[in-house]
Amino acid sequence: VCPMGKINFYAGPAILPATVIEQAQAAVKNFEGTGLSILEVSHRGKEFVKVMDNARALAKELMGLNDNYEVIFLHGGGLSQFHMVPMNLLNENETASYFDTGTWAHGALTEAKLFGNVHIACSSKDKNYTYIPRQYNVAPGSKYLHITSNNTIYGTQLQLPLNPPAGVPVVCDMSSDIFSRKVDYNPFDLVYAAAQKNLGPSGTTLVAVNKNILGHVNRRIPRMLDYRQHIEKESLLNTPSVFPIYVAYLTLQWVKSEGVDNIEARNLRKAKKLYDTIDASDLFNCPIAKEDRSVMNVCFTVASKELEE
Amino acid sequence: VCPMGKINFYAGPAILPATVIEQAQAAVKNFEGTGLSILEVSHRGKEFVKVMDNARALAKELMGLNDNYEVIFLHGGGLSQFHMVPMNLLNENETASYFDTGTWAHGALTEAKLFGNVHIACSSKDKNYTYIPRQYNVAPGSKYLHITSNNTIYGTQLQLPLNPPAGVPVVCDMSSDIFSRKVDYNPFDLVYAAAQKNLGPSGTTLVAVNKNILGHVNRRIPRMLDYRQHIEKESLLNTPSVFPIYVAYLTLQWVKSEGVDNIEARNLRKAKKLYDTIDASDLFNCPIAKEDRSVMNVCFTVASKELEE
Repeated sequence: VCPMGKINFYAGPAILPATVIEQAQAAVKNFEGTGLSILEVSHRGKEFVKVMDNARALAKELMGLNDNYEVIFLHGGGLSQFHMVPMNLLNENETASYFDTGTWAHGALTEAKLFGNVHIACSSKDKNYTYIPRQYNVAPGSKYLHITSNNTIYGTQLQLPLNPPAGVPVVCDMSSDIFSRKVDYNPFDLVYAAAQKNLGPSGTTLVAVNKNILGHVNRRIPRMLDYRQHIEKESLLNTPSVFPIYVAYLTLQWVKSEGVDNIEARNLRKAKKLYDTIDASDLFNCPIAKEDRSVMNVCFTVASKELEE
Repeated sequence: VCPMGKINFYAGPAILPATVIEQAQAAVKNFEGTGLSILEVSHRGKEFVKVMDNARALAKELMGLNDNYEVIFLHGGGLSQFHMVPMNLLNENETASYFDTGTWAHGALTEAKLFGNVHIACSSKDKNYTYIPRQYNVAPGSKYLHITSNNTIYGTQLQLPLNPPAGVPVVCDMSSDIFSRKVDYNPFDLVYAAAQKNLGPSGTTLVAVNKNILGHVNRRIPRMLDYRQHIEKESLLNTPSVFPIYVAYLTLQWVKSEGVDNIEARNLRKAKKLYDTIDASDLFNCPIAKEDRSVMNVCFTVASKELEE
C-alpha cells in the first residue's frame, strides 16, 4: 500500500495511508477534543474506551466472525503468541501439529515444544523454505494445527482455504497478510497478527479467538498470558498500547472504506508487475515456486553477490 | 509534570512536556529526515536503532548504573513483569519475599505464587494499605525481595534506601515514581517501570537488570519472556514498540535537561501545596499516614459520598 507515493523496501512496517498519518498526527496534539494528547489520556477514559470497543467490533466485522469469537488487542508482538498459543491450548502430554514453512513458522513450533508435544505436519526446510508443501498430515488427536499464512522472509504464501481434518482447531499467524486478500476466517479458531505489517504501527497484536477452544488446559496461566482474562476485561486488563491501537483502528477504518476486494485486486496487480519484471530479467531472480509466491512479500535475488550488495 | 498548563486527574498517563509532544508529532509526519513516518520505518533501520541505543544508554546514565546492568525496553506493561520476574529468578522450590503494600504489590506476589514460594515480608492490608509498614522480614534464603516504590492507587510511597539484608537481590516496581526523585539505583538488582506514568506513553516498559542475577533458574523460558534474550539482542529481539520507545527517549532527554534534582523539588512543592490544602480543609480528607504519603499520587476523599460523586 503506497498511497502517498512514498516507498519503503522493508519487509516489516509498511507505508500507512495518508489519512491515517494525518489523523494520528492530529491526535498526538489533541485527541477527540479532550485538549490532551492521545499520549496523555487514560485508557479508561470514555474517549479511548470507545476506540477500543470500535476497533474490536470493526476487526470482527471485517473478518466476518460470529459471536463465538472475540477480538482483543494484546501487547508483545507475534513472538509472544508463539508461547501464548500453546500455553492456553496445549497440555504437557498433548500434541499440536505445526506447518514448518519459514522462519516464523519454525519459531512458533520451537516455542510450543516448551509446553507439549509438537508434530511437524509438513516442512519445506529441505529446500530452504522456497515452497509450500502440497501434502501435510495432522497428528491424530492434535489439539490444534498451527499455520503461517504468509512467510515474510521467504516470500511464500498459503493458498486458502486449507481444508484441514474436521475437529482440529486451526491457529493461523496472519501477521503479514491479514486484510490483504479475501479470506473466510471462520475455519480458523485463533488468528493473530502483529500490527506492524498490515494493521498499523508496532506495539500491538490483534488476536481473534473462538472462545470455545479456551479453558481446556490444566496449567495455571499468568494473568497477562491468559486470553480469557483479556476477553473478560474487554482488552483493558492492563494499560494497553493506546496509540498503536488507535492507529490500528484508523487503519481498519481505511480497510473498510477501500474494501478488501479492491485491496486484494491492487495487491495482485502490483505483485504481478514485480514478478513479471523479475522473471523477464537476467539481472533479478525469484527462487520461490511460482504457485507459492507471496502477493505481500516479493523476494528476489540479484545475479551476483557483488551486485546484490 | 504540567508544563503546558494542561491538567489531567488520571493516576495513570500523565501530561507530557510540550517539547516532547511537539517532537513526537513531527516524527509521525517525518522521522529523522527519512521522509517516512516513525510509524512506517523499520526498527532495524539505522535511525531507530540509534534511538534504541541512545534511550538505553541515557536511562542507564540517569540511573547511575554500572556495567553489570543492562537497560531494555519490553512489551507488555508492568503486569507482564509480575510473571517475568519470578519466571527468570525463582525456581519452583525456592522462596521470594514480597512487600504487600497495595493493589499492584499484591498483584505481583499473586503471580509469583505460580512459580515458587512467596513469603510476605510485610503487609498493610489490615488498614486498607493506608501506610507502609516500618518493620519487615525477609525469609532466609530468599532469591529476591520485591518492593513497589510508589503505590499509585493508595497514594503511599516507600522511603528509600531500604537497607535490606545483604545478599538478597532487590526487585523494585518503580512504574509510578521513576525519575521523580533522587534515588540510588545501585542497591536494586532489577528495576521495572511501565512507561505510561513517568516515562512517556503506554506500550513499553523499561527494565534495568543486573546481569549477574540472571541464568540461575532451571525452567525453560519462552524467548520473549527471557531477559537474557532481550539483552543479547540489544532490545530488538522482536519488533519493539517503536513509537512509545521514541517518546520515552524524548522524555528521558527532557528529564536530563531539567535535572532530577529540580524535578524532585518541584514535585515536593506541588505535593505539599495539595496536602496542606487537604489537611486544612473540612471538605477533603487524606486517609494516608503522613510519613508515607506519596509525592506522586495525592489521594483524597471528600467529606460525603454524595459530594464525592
